[in-house]
Amino acid sequence: MTKQNKIGAVAVVGGTHGNELTGVYTVKHWTKNLLAKNYPGFQIEFLLANLGAIEENKRYLDHDLNRCFASEDLNNSQLNSREQLLAKQINQQLGPKDNSRVDFIIDLHTSTANMQTNIVLVEMDEFHLKLAAYLKQLLPEVVITSEASLLKDHHFLGSIAPKTLLIEVGPIAQGCLDFVVFEKTNQALKAALDFIEKYNNQDLSELSGHLPVFEYFSKLHFPVDENNEICAMIHPNVIGRDYSKITKGTPIFKDFLGNDILYQGEDANIAFINEAAYYDSQIAMCLCRPVVYDLKTCQLVS
Amino acid sequence: MTKQNKIGAVAVVGGTHGNELTGVYTVKHWTKNLLAKNYPGFQIEFLLANLGAIEENKRYLDHDLNRCFASEDLNNSQLNSREQLLAKQINQQLGPKDNSRVDFIIDLHTSTANMQTNIVLVEMDEFHLKLAAYLKQLLPEVVITSEASLLKDHHFLGSIAPKTLLIEVGPIAQGCLDFVVFEKTNQALKAALDFIEKYNNQDLSELSGHLPVFEYFSKLHFPVDENNEICAMIHPNVIGRDYSKITKGTPIFKDFLGNDILYQGEDANIAFINEAAYYDSQIAMCLCRPVVYDLKTCQLVS
Repeated sequence: MTKQNKIGAVAVVGGTHGNELTGVYTVKHWTKNLLAKNYPGFQIEFLLANLGAIEENKRYLDHDLNRCFASEDLNNSQLNSREQLLAKQINQQLGPKDNSRVDFIIDLHTSTANMQTNIVLVEMDEFHLKLAAYLKQLLPEVVITSEASLLKDHHFLGSIAPKTLLIEVGPIAQGCLDFVVFEKTNQALKAALDFIEKYNNQDLSELSGHLPVFEYFSKLHFPVDENNEICAMIHPNVIGRDYSKITKGTPIFKDFLGNDILYQGEDANIAFINEAAYYDSQIAMCLCRPVVYDLKTCQLVS
Repeated sequence: MTKQNKIGAVAVVGGTHGNELTGVYTVKHWTKNLLAKNYPGFQIEFLLANLGAIEENKRYLDHDLNRCFASEDLNNSQLNSREQLLAKQINQQLGPKDNSRVDFIIDLHTSTANMQTNIVLVEMDEFHLKLAAYLKQLLPEVVITSEASLLKDHHFLGSIAPKTLLIEVGPIAQGCLDFVVFEKTNQALKAALDFIEKYNNQDLSELSGHLPVFEYFSKLHFPVDENNEICAMIHPNVIGRDYSKITKGTPIFKDFLGNDILYQGEDANIAFINEAAYYDSQIAMCLCRPVVYDLKTCQLVS
């Protein structure tokens, strides 16, 4: 890897969404069991991000905290809902963004969709590609997705730091723990920390080959009726089949009378299918495309 | 069946728990599509019980509404949380309990646990046993459970009426719709309404044989640490295996380090395993026993 600064401070964050208990309990477990001492080469601090939402067992109180970290919003003194203020406080604590005290943020999430161990990247530079490749090598079931092309000034909590990883494991209902989901989350977390240790020690073997990534480009909304209420469900052929491909004509919804509704858009792979947290925006699923990165050049393979 | 009064008025209720969308959308769908006109022999009215909780996408605001209908509580003027007041209002609207305007209440629920199509009864008299047997005959996957022995003065919404049925389908995350869960719910609802039609017309064939029922007798709580926080998860061998049997020594939890915790209690079948709604009470699962009713005598087979 090219010339590098060591990673000195890492923040591991749970409870950015208050009803995603896996991250909350992972943070509590690591804090209590001093597991961080296994990584002497850098400092790890733990944060339960949205204590109010955790207490209420809700994703958020006023606004989704993980959409509050665009620089523009952090610098907007007019924004003062509970999460908007909390974002500013966390930005002071870990950041500030663009000049952050913390070098790396790992943010732990879960999904009600069948996302398996999903790694979300918001930058596709050399560092993040090698991190993703390392995780995929250790944990072959990892699926790498990219939000990099969606937003220049990203709104995720992790975007406070120049290096960040969002780990999102599913399916699991909100407000629940599940051993398998906990294990997958902790395996990915440990692998990411192992990577940092190796990165600091310049102990990473040169990677080559190709890295498959799903790149988000859009969202598909539920059909709604004349009262703007959801009037169809995800088609049973599609539910649980995250990352599969749909094309024009794929049965994508069923209305409440059982009639099929066909997909009309361009070819896409689908993810976050029937994610409970997206019902308030009437989002049925996210649309992505498979792309491939060359790990030698860190460029897209055309 | 013995001498009977016809069922004149039926209430179909959804949204008793605000984040169980299947019932909410079933009620909206039936109302909009006038499906009730398929049952000319009795009146059907629809109720979205907890509009405030539906709006907030929460199970409840202050108290679980489906625990607020004990006569003692309905008559206690000191109880005035939002759900306690709402219970009194619904009791006026459909009841009053013990002398109710409505003859039959069907209350629609979902569970994050793998409960399949679960029928919950709170009285095990001739009427309810025959209803359950009818449902089981039409929909063999139906599992019948009984809460009858737990409470004399029952606290379910349905207990306002002398005849009631709670339909609880899972697994489904809170705040989500799923076609299969919607279908199962609607099949059970239609079967119950068909039963009423036949009951009114004295058109029910004589039932005989045995009816298997799970009778709840207790609950199993999560292990907690010195801060009274949950410190283990449901064992992966057990999760999703609702209605299966556990005995002393069955691995029942795993702590966050992966150690097994063994069940120490008496033989039991388990249900509502890892139900998200029970985390606030730290209930890991409910314990029940298989019993069998003789449909001719309507007595327990010893």
